[in-house]
Amino acid sequence: MNIILLTPEDWLNNRVVRLTDRRHEHIKTILKSVVGDTLRVGLWGGDRGAGVVAKTTSSCTELEITLSDPPLPRHPFDIALGLPRPKMLRRVLRTAAEMGVANLHLIHSARVEKSFWQSPLLHESRITAALQAGMERSGDTTPPTVHLHRLFRPFVEDHLPGLIGERAGWLADPGADQPLNPSREPGLILLGPEGGFVPFEIALAQSVGVTAGHLGTRVLSVDTALAATLSQALG
Amino acid sequence: MNIILLTPEDWLNNRVVRLTDRRHEHIKTILKSVVGDTLRVGLWGGDRGAGVVAKTTSSCTELEITLSDPPLPRHPFDIALGLPRPKMLRRVLRTAAEMGVANLHLIHSARVEKSFWQSPLLHESRITAALQAGMERSGDTTPPTVHLHRLFRPFVEDHLPGLIGERAGWLADPGADQPLNPSREPGLILLGPEGGFVPFEIALAQSVGVTAGHLGTRVLSVDTALAATLSQALG
Repeated sequence: MNIILLTPEDWLNNRVVRLTDRRHEHIKTILKSVVGDTLRVGLWGGDRGAGVVAKTTSSCTELEITLSDPPLPRHPFDIALGLPRPKMLRRVLRTAAEMGVANLHLIHSARVEKSFWQSPLLHESRITAALQAGMERSGDTTPPTVHLHRLFRPFVEDHLPGLIGERAGWLADPGADQPLNPSREPGLILLGPEGGFVPFEIALAQSVGVTAGHLGTRVLSVDTALAATLSQALG
Repeated sequence: MNIILLTPEDWLNNRVVRLTDRRHEHIKTILKSVVGDTLRVGLWGGDRGAGVVAKTTSSCTELEITLSDPPLPRHPFDIALGLPRPKMLRRVLRTAAEMGVANLHLIHSARVEKSFWQSPLLHESRITAALQAGMERSGDTTPPTVHLHRLFRPFVEDHLPGLIGERAGWLADPGADQPLNPSREPGLILLGPEGGFVPFEIALAQSVGVTAGHLGTRVLSVDTALAATLSQALG
């Protein structure tokens, strides 16, 4: 945990927070902090700063908060990703949050199993928990906004052009004859599910101005492809 | 599974393999292959090619093998990584294998817990299984060679210069004032454990010619840092 994320319910007054949950456990048993120690803190969705341990008991930790740093900047790439199977989804949410993605679109695609859309991991509280794990890793306070698109064609035809706007639109395809986004332009990157996009989907995306590019010659798993894409522009 | 990996015990004669384990299960229940279908296969540590389903029963699959493609090329970066906690170690082995790393050095470091060296995951068979999962993802037949170095100082002073040779030596340090290996030279990259290398370790590596560079401004977790590093040179 590289940051203690604070929510409105934590505040005792306008300077002090009281933590009683896993953040308290972490401060007590992992960080082993004592009164006077300074910890990195941040407001969920807001500024970052320092928390000085003002009180520590077996059941709670109180921190005196000073917020002096703005939120971390957003990653230049938005991501649209074929909805992964549940186990992979958690990892994908965590990585997107860790790398500061502003918008993560989870989309349907021919090779996405319909049952994946029933996963309890798609409940807002579970998505938030997975994002939080990523934010805590990299010290970020801004979660990605996660958008669900249960139909591929309307997503591409009706939404994608507006989502890309004046920026670059790319789609990862191992069969493409050029590398993906070689000049690292800000934009939206489409990544297929396990097994990739089918030819019809690639053609439909190209018909609205998206360019196909490859991520090297290897077939990459979804989590590695996401990390590889985001690593092309490290903030 | 993007490739069926074959070992010497699988061969019935010099053309045909019989599979009875999870590869058979995978062919039967996931791929649902029937006689005449062609699957991607490869020799563990050798060439790649095609396997035509010659026979399928409830307990075994027989494939007729033709090996016509050479092994995939190796990634230009060797990696030396502070030994991660067991859960992370599996993921790291998988990613290194997926991206075709030739040599993965797992090293001790001040912030590596001594107990991590007792993990059953470091047994050769468990390492091989984790590497296999990565190779099966990307269709590779060559596993990374995994080297264990239980003492940091002798690793850096006695081994590192020889391991780097005429290539570039880099160390990931979030405090560095230049990006890591911006010209993507082949070489060896040192990545710290969770919490990073301590200043003494960075200085010791620099004393044998290693250059410190950062991977952006964010603190990255070990698996993301590895994927980010390897993604700088996608094969």
